[in-house]
Amino acid sequence: MQIESCYLFQGLTRPQIERIESIAKERFIKKGDWLFHEDQKATHIYLLKEGAIELVTKVEDAVDIPISIIRPDNGCLGIGALVEPYLYSLSARCMEDSNLLAIEQVKLQTLMQDDHELGCTIQRNLAQKLLARLKETRREIKIHFMNLVRSITF
Amino acid sequence: MQIESCYLFQGLTRPQIERIESIAKERFIKKGDWLFHEDQKATHIYLLKEGAIELVTKVEDAVDIPISIIRPDNGCLGIGALVEPYLYSLSARCMEDSNLLAIEQVKLQTLMQDDHELGCTIQRNLAQKLLARLKETRREIKIHFMNLVRSITF
Repeated sequence: MQIESCYLFQGLTRPQIERIESIAKERFIKKGDWLFHEDQKATHIYLLKEGAIELVTKVEDAVDIPISIIRPDNGCLGIGALVEPYLYSLSARCMEDSNLLAIEQVKLQTLMQDDHELGCTIQRNLAQKLLARLKETRREIKIHFMNLVRSITF
Repeated sequence: MQIESCYLFQGLTRPQIERIESIAKERFIKKGDWLFHEDQKATHIYLLKEGAIELVTKVEDAVDIPISIIRPDNGCLGIGALVEPYLYSLSARCMEDSNLLAIEQVKLQTLMQDDHELGCTIQRNLAQKLLARLKETRREIKIHFMNLVRSITF
């Protein structure tokens, strides 16, 4: 994924995209390795160039629930780095050897503070994505709810 | 709730708060009436001054799941009005006769476009709230998931 194709950066101008490109660094991570863990300090946002990364949430010490699989065409990881208190909201595990673009949270925050229009665009894109995810997650709850109702009724 | 106590407007300056106050209008709604419906065009954001409003989501034609109850001290309604494509993500039903402050979406968008710092602050507050709600909603799924695991295991 290129920076300009990530949903977070939609609507930015070419010079704004170039400023973000200038703070992005390539990073390689091996299959099976963890990129980050839930509730840890979110130091980076990652865009996936090659590979596959699974987002999971821990239920109990030994149990993870898969939330989604990130591939090069569908988004980025670590959006907790954009939202106070800057913690990862999920854990990310590498499913295949992967190439990433890592954008340091501190540097991106500086760009966003220096250029309010850039900051505002990213925050608006983020809010839009979060509301969409919230609706999807509520749909899952509806399914559980209806299954429960049916198991009681029939 | 006053405008300055709503999470959306935290961090705004006094003149910014006053500009929002100048576009807010009082509205009264009776117990049992619907304020808005899921997937309808989101024309207003509402702050509750007195009363109680229930947010629900429709599962099937005759079934609603309660999502939360809004009271004067805990937030606002209709944040779909801040996020493209500007649709209400839930339905709102009045549980008690209620007094609201209604902020027209079109007017607020104009304020946000004219003052990027104001826009950016609101979007940042919104993203923070949405991420928190997403985490809460995921916690509910975890509970369903663990109940399911237990029902299979035992």
